[in-house]
Amino acid sequence: MDIWTAIKNRRSIRNFTADPLEEKELRNLILKAGIWAPSGGNAQNWRFIVITDQKVLNKLKLVSPGLLGSPQTIIIICQDLVNALEKGGELGVKTLSLMDTAMAAQNIMLAAYAVGLGTCPIASFHPEAVQRIMGLPVHIYPQLLISVGFSKENPPTPRRDPNIIWFNSYEE
Amino acid sequence: MDIWTAIKNRRSIRNFTADPLEEKELRNLILKAGIWAPSGGNAQNWRFIVITDQKVLNKLKLVSPGLLGSPQTIIIICQDLVNALEKGGELGVKTLSLMDTAMAAQNIMLAAYAVGLGTCPIASFHPEAVQRIMGLPVHIYPQLLISVGFSKENPPTPRRDPNIIWFNSYEE
Repeated sequence: MDIWTAIKNRRSIRNFTADPLEEKELRNLILKAGIWAPSGGNAQNWRFIVITDQKVLNKLKLVSPGLLGSPQTIIIICQDLVNALEKGGELGVKTLSLMDTAMAAQNIMLAAYAVGLGTCPIASFHPEAVQRIMGLPVHIYPQLLISVGFSKENPPTPRRDPNIIWFNSYEE
Repeated sequence: MDIWTAIKNRRSIRNFTADPLEEKELRNLILKAGIWAPSGGNAQNWRFIVITDQKVLNKLKLVSPGLLGSPQTIIIICQDLVNALEKGGELGVKTLSLMDTAMAAQNIMLAAYAVGLGTCPIASFHPEAVQRIMGLPVHIYPQLLISVGFSKENPPTPRRDPNIIWFNSYEE
């Protein structure tokens, strides 16, 4: 699929069919798209935990107000914050790690769209509760969930405000 | 260009030719790629300031240790933090705004690669100094710079660690 098509037509999907996804395809989204994002200082502190087990999905829903619909898969994108601190200091933990997560997520969501899957990024969830559910050590910090599944909807395109560009000087 | 090709082959570029870029092309990168990223709660708090003026570029270099080479263009991606707070509270300011910036940046960098341009994301700069140089109000906060230009190098592909995926349970 053409890059411009994927960028323009990807929508956030919140209604999914009950069809399960193939492990190989989920792996490809991460290995052939997610980890090819840049990372601050090439840190690659991301950790991807793919949830397809319905019991775990149900637990995650309970602590994730932003998680709508019933996706067959959730990818939990975590960052190793000890690595992030070692490699990037405070900037690494508070800024780079979040941006690295987001850029990897965007790659995954574009690639998912290209193979016919719907996704939605979810930041409204309780990170410590997700750590508890998954038994994560304290330094493996969940920053973003991505729901993945076959779309059951065709959401409208939210209007984009084009008046957000300035050249060489800024005026309100 | 195919989405997978763009994702896989984009590299961070730090050596640029002296050829200037067309304003229209820079505008397209933002309007046809950047703003088609998702944003938390569809907030669209991003503000893109495109710098092509050599005098301003030189000033930015002085306050941006991460800015290498001599790109002909810098895109300063800012967030309106008052809007971010109003729309998303603390999560909006500290997390969503950074992720929105990063996802828009990734779209821009992929699209730039597809039209033959090199880019590099730069987080190591002094945001308040950039605000001062650009005369930005305090709530228009620079979060990421992207250098853009014609590449003068063919950097090697940094190895990606594939051992960053878990299915349904996490073990160190």
